[in-house]
Amino acid sequence: MPRNDDHGVTPQGEDFSAWYNELVTKAQLVDRGPARGTMVIRPYGYRVWELLQSELDTRIKDTGHDNAYFPLLIPESYLRREAEHVEGFAPELAVVTHAGGKELEEPLVIRPTSETVIGEMMSRWISSHRDLPLLLNQWANIVRWELRPRMFLRTTEFLWQEGHTAHADEAEALAETMLALDLYTQVARDVAALAVVPGEKTPGERFAGAAQTFTIEAMMRDGRALQAGTTHYMATNFARAFGIQYTSEAGQLEYCHTTSWGMSTRMIGAIIMAHGDDKGLVLPPNLAPYQVVVVPIGRGEQFDSVLAASRALAADLKQAGIRVHVDERTQLSPGFKFNDWELRGAPIRIELGPRDLDAGTAVVAQRLGMAGKSTLAIADLAATLPGMLADYQDYLLRRAATFRDEHTAVVDDWAEFVSAVSTGWALALHCGAAACEDDIKAETAATPRCIPLDGPPETGRCIRCDADSAYGKRVIFGRAY
Amino acid sequence: MPRNDDHGVTPQGEDFSAWYNELVTKAQLVDRGPARGTMVIRPYGYRVWELLQSELDTRIKDTGHDNAYFPLLIPESYLRREAEHVEGFAPELAVVTHAGGKELEEPLVIRPTSETVIGEMMSRWISSHRDLPLLLNQWANIVRWELRPRMFLRTTEFLWQEGHTAHADEAEALAETMLALDLYTQVARDVAALAVVPGEKTPGERFAGAAQTFTIEAMMRDGRALQAGTTHYMATNFARAFGIQYTSEAGQLEYCHTTSWGMSTRMIGAIIMAHGDDKGLVLPPNLAPYQVVVVPIGRGEQFDSVLAASRALAADLKQAGIRVHVDERTQLSPGFKFNDWELRGAPIRIELGPRDLDAGTAVVAQRLGMAGKSTLAIADLAATLPGMLADYQDYLLRRAATFRDEHTAVVDDWAEFVSAVSTGWALALHCGAAACEDDIKAETAATPRCIPLDGPPETGRCIRCDADSAYGKRVIFGRAY
Repeated sequence: MPRNDDHGVTPQGEDFSAWYNELVTKAQLVDRGPARGTMVIRPYGYRVWELLQSELDTRIKDTGHDNAYFPLLIPESYLRREAEHVEGFAPELAVVTHAGGKELEEPLVIRPTSETVIGEMMSRWISSHRDLPLLLNQWANIVRWELRPRMFLRTTEFLWQEGHTAHADEAEALAETMLALDLYTQVARDVAALAVVPGEKTPGERFAGAAQTFTIEAMMRDGRALQAGTTHYMATNFARAFGIQYTSEAGQLEYCHTTSWGMSTRMIGAIIMAHGDDKGLVLPPNLAPYQVVVVPIGRGEQFDSVLAASRALAADLKQAGIRVHVDERTQLSPGFKFNDWELRGAPIRIELGPRDLDAGTAVVAQRLGMAGKSTLAIADLAATLPGMLADYQDYLLRRAATFRDEHTAVVDDWAEFVSAVSTGWALALHCGAAACEDDIKAETAATPRCIPLDGPPETGRCIRCDADSAYGKRVIFGRAY
Repeated sequence: MPRNDDHGVTPQGEDFSAWYNELVTKAQLVDRGPARGTMVIRPYGYRVWELLQSELDTRIKDTGHDNAYFPLLIPESYLRREAEHVEGFAPELAVVTHAGGKELEEPLVIRPTSETVIGEMMSRWISSHRDLPLLLNQWANIVRWELRPRMFLRTTEFLWQEGHTAHADEAEALAETMLALDLYTQVARDVAALAVVPGEKTPGERFAGAAQTFTIEAMMRDGRALQAGTTHYMATNFARAFGIQYTSEAGQLEYCHTTSWGMSTRMIGAIIMAHGDDKGLVLPPNLAPYQVVVVPIGRGEQFDSVLAASRALAADLKQAGIRVHVDERTQLSPGFKFNDWELRGAPIRIELGPRDLDAGTAVVAQRLGMAGKSTLAIADLAATLPGMLADYQDYLLRRAATFRDEHTAVVDDWAEFVSAVSTGWALALHCGAAACEDDIKAETAATPRCIPLDGPPETGRCIRCDADSAYGKRVIFGRAY
């Protein structure tokens, strides 16, 4: 049941889905767009995306990839060139049939992903082994028509980056696929504080047209999994469809091996659901628009001097590299502001009143965990807070890892499996048959999330059908977003 | 006539248009996309855009604007709410009629600009004077169906930023319109080295739905004008169409005054045509992907030591904040590489051979003007080059300003006007009548580019029809891109 005041959200334990839907709006991260299933990303939400973008973009460039930009509109016939690809994406396409006041001779689809148009361009740009590897990335908007839209998680339009690379052989292309997965793992763990598990998708969960798909899976606080980034090894599937060929050093004409990989605004949904609580958002300092919010307290002339001191403190903290905001709104009470910044997930709040000012101290309150409130010397804050923020960032990752481990069970029994996937993940042996995956999904709503890269070797009987297990290790099963 | 070798382009004097079209492709800035009129922005071109973006984004944020993101797809009915707006954009719309395998109940247009959808959201977010001003910006792709597409200048899809703001009254909104114009002027002059003239558009050249439109106009090396950024004061036109209202301090319900302003990938076309020459691109250092390119010269073992020294030099220069690239391609001759980097507009080329290395010196060649080639001590380069790049940047702006002034004539006679607009700009008095503007355009292909902000007061007779002049000052006329 929705709460009446501005800050209340339905408790997670009561209705996790309602909690999420109310929170994304009340924290001013997003709003509904006018067209069905679209979202408006408001400044507070967009800043989180910009910070994430910047962290990922730096890593993408540092590993030798160049940004480029490819067209939004793709001839419909391009998608049909790769049979599995069109089958996977056809139901989700938005189609432009008219433009410039006329009906188009060939309809154009809005990119649901860009393998086809980039494949076409790669075929023009690559001719020799000297042109390889070709390492490209683009930041772009994507349209996929969603039946059950949900802010950040499934919207008809979303933002992402998509890496697309071409290589001389399978080994290089697979190494690239793993490199990209490692970039995603770094960003998810070190920036978003998500305790992700990198692994491979089972054949039934692969990207349409890929030979192998890898993923990082994060656990949300309702125990569900969220796929936070995927990388795909395409073998020569797209190279054959689009004629991406090169002449080898030996003078032979060969097909390239290609990859693609994407991380999207979905990550913001993951951050909300992996860290948030009944008070609202919990943002990791590395992605918080404001890492520290200063709330000046007082009336009349006292307020003026507290405000001046707050601004001076903010200037100090900014100098120390901290993203800081002074909440100068005069029509709102301090208590309202405290709740507001808890709802919006600011990692640290500083309360500064007349008595604090006289004593040269301020009250420092962390959004979550550890120390709670403490009184610190104002003069020390610029030196102290960066370490406090770093500790808070580490704390969120440890907390997420602990939560994930406490909600993951190694199971060899069907009843245990059913119980495990109702509250978290099950690590189980599986036969690898698509029909058996479907059966498990029909019974429990759980799907194979990934075969963890670092899972120890193990074989035995399938958790569901008792056939020989596949993959040589356990698979993570869970319900997923 | 196109040249056969890799680097040659048709001379500007022979066919400026052919020069441009060949250059954008040969310099690997862009390629044609598969759908009509679309462009692929290749890494070298996209890097120019990223550098420009970064400079503009910083200025936009520093002046209190927040980035956000609004949907690509807009209900067709939204555009019809502002009569002039829909009239202006209807012929250029791309329309999505089918999505998710079904025909849509209401067609969606791909944004040709976002006043409508942002207006709708503003009406939801603004209720009190405390919510004002609302200062938003988005970086986005735009689709406008173009009959005669041209890379960067007119493509069916392009990239831009669009600022959208709402204010309590006309004075504040007009101040914002001028602030944005000033940001554009700064970026154009200080970053892109364009000698732009800021001014107001005549009523006939206004944005569809605006009360006033301002522009910065740059002169290309064929004497034509290019509009490099525009800002619009909307009065309450969009506020009335979308119900953007606030309660004033006095408790009255009032309409907001809104603005919008945009700068796009068109700027890259301006940079190419304002600075380039018969050898190719001339990039301003502030936007050059590589400010310095090092070409190692030599064979066998000698090449190895030259290459090692080149890499060490590049590391030094990078440390000094310079964007540097070592051209390590082994299959190409130094002469080919020199031509290649001239074609691609790198401001400074460093040639490093075995004898240079023995002498501890390198040959430093500037792409354009001033010093030509000089021999400098390698050890001094990290200290010397930043100043040399800054001088080169200044030189480009001075050169552009001189060129503009030499190709601008103050005219009071029709024959002089016709002559002036055939090679550049005419500063003339005009009656302000739309029919007279049309007549001038039909006779000379010239249009009023702007009424310069800093033009001295002057009145008299219209250059064409002899009626009383309008605006109280001279108008710039020219043929335009």
